[in-house]
Amino acid sequence: MKAFMGKDFLLNNEVASTLYFNAAAPMPIFDWHCHLSAKEIYENKTPKDITELWLGGDHYKWRAMRSMGIDEKYITGDADSFEKFKAFAKTLSYAIGNPLYHWAHLELQRYFNIYTPLTEATAREIFDEANMAIITGGFTPRELITSSNVVCLCTTDDPADTLEYHQKLAEDDSFKCKVLPAFRPDKALYIEQEAFTPWLESLEAVCEKAINNFDDFIDALNSRIEFFDSLGCKASDCSLSYVPFAEADKDEINSIFIKGKNKEALTKEELDKYRTYMIQFFAEKYAEKNWVMELHIGAMRNNNTLMFNKLGPDAGFDSIDDCNIAVGLSRFLDSVAVKGKLPKTVLFNLNPKDNYVLGTMLGNFQSSECASKIQFGSAWWFNDNLDGMMTQMKTLANLGVLGKFIGMVTDSRSFLSYPRHEYFRRIVCALIGDMVVNGLYPCDVEMLSEIVSGISYKNAKDYFGLEL
Amino acid sequence: MKAFMGKDFLLNNEVASTLYFNAAAPMPIFDWHCHLSAKEIYENKTPKDITELWLGGDHYKWRAMRSMGIDEKYITGDADSFEKFKAFAKTLSYAIGNPLYHWAHLELQRYFNIYTPLTEATAREIFDEANMAIITGGFTPRELITSSNVVCLCTTDDPADTLEYHQKLAEDDSFKCKVLPAFRPDKALYIEQEAFTPWLESLEAVCEKAINNFDDFIDALNSRIEFFDSLGCKASDCSLSYVPFAEADKDEINSIFIKGKNKEALTKEELDKYRTYMIQFFAEKYAEKNWVMELHIGAMRNNNTLMFNKLGPDAGFDSIDDCNIAVGLSRFLDSVAVKGKLPKTVLFNLNPKDNYVLGTMLGNFQSSECASKIQFGSAWWFNDNLDGMMTQMKTLANLGVLGKFIGMVTDSRSFLSYPRHEYFRRIVCALIGDMVVNGLYPCDVEMLSEIVSGISYKNAKDYFGLEL
Amino acid sequence: MKAFMGKDFLLNNEVASTLYFNAAAPMPIFDWHCHLSAKEIYENKTPKDITELWLGGDHYKWRAMRSMGIDEKYITGDADSFEKFKAFAKTLSYAIGNPLYHWAHLELQRYFNIYTPLTEATAREIFDEANMAIITGGFTPRELITSSNVVCLCTTDDPADTLEYHQKLAEDDSFKCKVLPAFRPDKALYIEQEAFTPWLESLEAVCEKAINNFDDFIDALNSRIEFFDSLGCKASDCSLSYVPFAEADKDEINSIFIKGKNKEALTKEELDKYRTYMIQFFAEKYAEKNWVMELHIGAMRNNNTLMFNKLGPDAGFDSIDDCNIAVGLSRFLDSVAVKGKLPKTVLFNLNPKDNYVLGTMLGNFQSSECASKIQFGSAWWFNDNLDGMMTQMKTLANLGVLGKFIGMVTDSRSFLSYPRHEYFRRIVCALIGDMVVNGLYPCDVEMLSEIVSGISYKNAKDYFGLEL
Repeated sequence: MKAFMGKDFLLNNEVASTLYFNAAAPMPIFDWHCHLSAKEIYENKTPKDITELWLGGDHYKWRAMRSMGIDEKYITGDADSFEKFKAFAKTLSYAIGNPLYHWAHLELQRYFNIYTPLTEATAREIFDEANMAIITGGFTPRELITSSNVVCLCTTDDPADTLEYHQKLAEDDSFKCKVLPAFRPDKALYIEQEAFTPWLESLEAVCEKAINNFDDFIDALNSRIEFFDSLGCKASDCSLSYVPFAEADKDEINSIFIKGKNKEALTKEELDKYRTYMIQFFAEKYAEKNWVMELHIGAMRNNNTLMFNKLGPDAGFDSIDDCNIAVGLSRFLDSVAVKGKLPKTVLFNLNPKDNYVLGTMLGNFQSSECASKIQFGSAWWFNDNLDGMMTQMKTLANLGVLGKFIGMVTDSRSFLSYPRHEYFRRIVCALIGDMVVNGLYPCDVEMLSEIVSGISYKNAKDYFGLEL
Repeated sequence: MKAFMGKDFLLNNEVASTLYFNAAAPMPIFDWHCHLSAKEIYENKTPKDITELWLGGDHYKWRAMRSMGIDEKYITGDADSFEKFKAFAKTLSYAIGNPLYHWAHLELQRYFNIYTPLTEATAREIFDEANMAIITGGFTPRELITSSNVVCLCTTDDPADTLEYHQKLAEDDSFKCKVLPAFRPDKALYIEQEAFTPWLESLEAVCEKAINNFDDFIDALNSRIEFFDSLGCKASDCSLSYVPFAEADKDEINSIFIKGKNKEALTKEELDKYRTYMIQFFAEKYAEKNWVMELHIGAMRNNNTLMFNKLGPDAGFDSIDDCNIAVGLSRFLDSVAVKGKLPKTVLFNLNPKDNYVLGTMLGNFQSSECASKIQFGSAWWFNDNLDGMMTQMKTLANLGVLGKFIGMVTDSRSFLSYPRHEYFRRIVCALIGDMVVNGLYPCDVEMLSEIVSGISYKNAKDYFGLEL
Repeated sequence: MKAFMGKDFLLNNEVASTLYFNAAAPMPIFDWHCHLSAKEIYENKTPKDITELWLGGDHYKWRAMRSMGIDEKYITGDADSFEKFKAFAKTLSYAIGNPLYHWAHLELQRYFNIYTPLTEATAREIFDEANMAIITGGFTPRELITSSNVVCLCTTDDPADTLEYHQKLAEDDSFKCKVLPAFRPDKALYIEQEAFTPWLESLEAVCEKAINNFDDFIDALNSRIEFFDSLGCKASDCSLSYVPFAEADKDEINSIFIKGKNKEALTKEELDKYRTYMIQFFAEKYAEKNWVMELHIGAMRNNNTLMFNKLGPDAGFDSIDDCNIAVGLSRFLDSVAVKGKLPKTVLFNLNPKDNYVLGTMLGNFQSSECASKIQFGSAWWFNDNLDGMMTQMKTLANLGVLGKFIGMVTDSRSFLSYPRHEYFRRIVCALIGDMVVNGLYPCDVEMLSEIVSGISYKNAKDYFGLEL
């Protein structure tokens, strides 16, 4: 029996261990997609306690607690800090097999040096010990980023964002980690939603220009792309439940835009046309800028109206959609590729039924611009667990060139999430180690190390053209 | 090499064995969803022979025999009892990896004390030995239920059912197992089918009231719900190939109902509206009664017209549909949740592509009413095999709180199916034992036993509020 | 640690090895679906070098090289032979876990007696050694087929094909392997495509009769079916992204045909009706001829317009579609079954999400005509890898009778692909060996050998009625 989450956690043979400790663990972290706040990094405050760190904004943990039957008071409510922590500890013991179990214990081990399993019974002792560690120091955002060996991270930013804190961080020589903005223009796509009008106003404000028609809108977005680019932006992102593909000429798009702006009802067909035009526009701009286009496909958000009205979005009430995505995605990518304007692209799927659709879509649009120009994004959100990561990598291995995979992102809102890179790297080494000990790949340590260090860090560095 | 289906069948390490024998095996069985006949339990007849027990009504076995190329004469036809048994024995040897292989041998071991593998060559000897055992005694429905340590079972009953035998069983103190009805109003949904008219007449008969309009219909259903409730009903069930969601006001539903009653053609949109209204109505009633709502999603029934005309439904000609279900299911659950009327709900999927859709849907609607109010139903029908059960539990573990899973049901028409609970519990212990020996969860036997006994029995007991 | 692709490659226990070497390996190969050229077999030329053999037409390898970022010059371009080989060698090292890795090394081992792993560093040495072997002899199509112990292969042929080389091969007593045509009338279905007109002309030419209306068309197809049959054809094939089902009377089909012939636009509904009629027509003819109907469902072809314009079809720009297929497929099969005209059928899916849909569809239409009349085709194209084959067989085992599976086909355009049968058979033995050593099936070597030799060869021989 292996020790619980010991030194060889997830590493089941000598090859896996050797690769992990020699080729994976030494690599720095380039976290090219996350939801950290540049403002919080800049302000660099010490957190109040482990409850704030763990339960302040982590909807994964909230969801698990609700599945345990915990009252909302102990989740997002006004219960006291230890009571919340204890309720989470109790939940965790029953959440056997959940990635939260491993994430939480990796965080306790790596940041707090606590190796005791967290249960309702040990909650008090761990709560106190962790809070003492926080007081002792090392838990500000910058300290956590630095001690985690992160050399660059890309946040996720709205086009209307001023990027004020990114600018301040860039000017601050004392903090070595690059904090780059990433362009996420989702609000530009969802013209039919209530949030569109206030968002458009904020875009007008930041551009200091009125947006009266679609040309104005495109001008405004172009100016924001230039601005993001000037601050070193290398990546964009977009979330779609499915990939629409319905082409229309610009006049029609302009009139759809005006209708949307005026809060007139739009048909599904009009929305598909509008969104198709927009994602083509963005793709072509990204190609021009040599940005990476990330597409996150398949989330179905805000399913619980009652709780949405209480807590708003991103509070743990999202799940997985099951639209058919193959044709739309193919037609969209081809429509820009045919013009020579397909940017480097990372395709993420939320529904694991789409693994093989995406895994084969990549191969349709590769090119000699770079290794694996079209990437299969690492296991995302609900798939970001041991099985999901194994499945995503086996799919990629079977269908493409695993050795050129750009690997893991935390996709997280928490400064404690970097051990997810360790978790991922251990799984990479477990997967590859198993192949070797089973005689499926030669025990060529040099080549294997090249592959493992590539997936851990170097491939992403090359792919994004990161300069340190 | 492990012995064939020996003591440690499926248990691959000490932890798994310890958990199974100490925490799982001692638990009684609460079979909260099955298709047993209360009448047969009441009448308590000794079966004619093992062929009747095994091949009298088991469409799983029939299907396997047809796949072997066996003539229908030996399946549902008039071949003699031993010839049928021998044809099944021959089939079984080729059905390597099929759950039937394990179910059949578990039944031979547990009920007949026969440990010889069944083949065409051993068929005669086993047939004779099994039939001798049946004559010797212990094979009436009540004896089988009692010897299987079943403390409660929920049948599946039509609203028009008189529940006469449930009443008789409730009055019979000599039989300790609770036999509760469960409410399955599928026929109320499929208004367009031929069977609707005779069914409606049977509902009028049992209610002793004419049903002239939709209000009468709702009154009749309400009265049946009250009646089921008075007999201790705790569960309802509904089978849907997909979950419709199209809202309409009651006037429209009334006119759709009248059209359907009059055998006028209904559009898909009308049927979706009608069914949406009905499942909302039922859900709200179940919430009121504190019944559990089971939804079985994804069956495509009666695919073979020729054989349907010969043998009718439930004869082994069903398979898996592949509709998109995420949006409809989300909108339906939210529509009742927003009124505070979402009952405890168990979501079963037949298409494994939906595992992650359901596994994440749960999390949208949990609450503090009870642990895991929305449950992911155990691997159902075609998924009720080693791989399917592992996959369903790993999915639940990754996405929710496995420790609060309410576990297995036989879903069976046979009194010999209880070893499927043993099969399931061994798999639970195998899954959890593997996690522990691989260092993924601490070897905390007390907590592990709590989880295993919970999944085996206690969680379902608590969830359904079973009082013994 | 096992040796890299050694004697026990993929065989992880004694049972697996025993079964492989005693029951699987000795079986000849019946490759009942491939894309080899009868002309090339007849002409029997020695290949120029290993680059021609490996990279001359293999779009699997091309795709991998593009994913590596290799310039098209080294893929389908005019780079020199060794440079192409080296670029592939480099790609291969990074393609860890890809079936190409194993296929390439199995081919080096079995045909060239080369056991050195292929890397950029060993490329020169292996290139030279392989080319020397080719010069030394044994590498003509007929020699490769003979040394691979292939007793029969079925090519894939258009109805308008003259089958001239099949006739010549049949007359040539010196070559023992049967080379049978298989009927693939896809072009008859895709009436809306540009290729339809020239194809119809070629059909007229080969039939020496004008096709003026739908009756003429059906007559022409019937005459080709008779002709194929006269040359020993036993199989047909058809590729569909989804299975349409929309019935119409023959008059309507005739007018759709005339419109299509005249290049008038056809609606999706018209195309569905036309194709439904055609696949029903073909199915009934195949039943009459006792041919096997193969359906390949789920490819999405020619996704990259730029590359299609450069290289045409089958150049590595295809991927997986994700249509809903259950209802259409069920209705189609039932529509011919109800007339007693459902032929033996092999269902292949490209999207693994459809595994359970197909795996259960089989069971709806089995009969006593033969064992497993409706077969689940082996893991196809993008699924033809270790994981895909395991998944397909586990699915079949769980849902049907694995022991009657007709097994593997190369589906290949290369004369070096026969080791894929070895790869498959090793996986069969690994799967079954694991079951036995884990106590899930008795260690009955006679029965196991029957199953393994059946899946390797005998079942297909019986199913197709192959006479040698």
